[in-house]
Amino acid sequence: MAKEPKTLDELFHDTLKDIYFAEKKILGALPKMAKAAQNEELIAAFEKHRNETEGHVERLEQVFALIDKKPLGKTCDAIVGITEEGAEIMKEYKGSPALDAGLLAAAQSVEHYEISRYGTLRTWAEELGLTEAASLLEETLSEEKATDEALTRIAESVVNQEAEAV
Amino acid sequence: MAKEPKTLDELFHDTLKDIYFAEKKILGALPKMAKAAQNEELIAAFEKHRNETEGHVERLEQVFALIDKKPLGKTCDAIVGITEEGAEIMKEYKGSPALDAGLLAAAQSVEHYEISRYGTLRTWAEELGLTEAASLLEETLSEEKATDEALTRIAESVVNQEAEAV
Repeated sequence: MAKEPKTLDELFHDTLKDIYFAEKKILGALPKMAKAAQNEELIAAFEKHRNETEGHVERLEQVFALIDKKPLGKTCDAIVGITEEGAEIMKEYKGSPALDAGLLAAAQSVEHYEISRYGTLRTWAEELGLTEAASLLEETLSEEKATDEALTRIAESVVNQEAEAV
Repeated sequence: MAKEPKTLDELFHDTLKDIYFAEKKILGALPKMAKAAQNEELIAAFEKHRNETEGHVERLEQVFALIDKKPLGKTCDAIVGITEEGAEIMKEYKGSPALDAGLLAAAQSVEHYEISRYGTLRTWAEELGLTEAASLLEETLSEEKATDEALTRIAESVVNQEAEAV
């Protein structure tokens, strides 16, 4: 059976399902990362970002509603791979001075994946004339960028010093 | 057998192996993406980035040499997942007006993964006093950021218009 050519609104919907799955996966991973982390500032950053992530899931549900679709996830291989790397760090570096540095690196690769996805989705929403959806996606994008910057500050100031202090 | 606690220099070496694997994977993926793309500007961007990626592999080999290690890769689950998503787009959107938009999104998630990894590695190299390695990693980081910005410009100007023109 020949398939219809897929258009930008379908790509938007597919990618929305992808990031919806990813956000839920991240929601499950963040408490584990907070529990594993040693540095207080890093623990606080993971806990704060967990709360923000709940808001991101809600915003995505609003975007699904705006395009008259049910909020459904679709397995996102990228986030599965990225979070597997984080789990590996937790296992291999348990009790090691470099654990926090590794957790920070894992968290920043999650943030960058999200920054790329939300940037893309926001641009597509604008192209599709979905102004309200574009605003919601932009709000989350700003929070992801702020989280990445906060993690960079922690990485530069505290964690690497710990990792060296063996 | 109890393992020694791992330090930042081991984390640096592990992560170097991870991105070395990732760059080689990307080197294999880019010609396929260039072949699949429809827009001339996008094809040129993929081809240009393929050439740059060869340089990134060489720089990584120089960094391995600077820490007296052999250039070896280690399976990077993240890039495997990210490139699988790209392959899925090529399959599902073949012949569709939204194909280029999907390829751009896939390429930008690759770029963001690399931006996060090179940012992390550069910071660690500085902490470890590996000044020359830090410079090499910074050079590649700048090129990855420039590629991401170039892809954003293409996404905003050309591809989304094609995707809408059904």
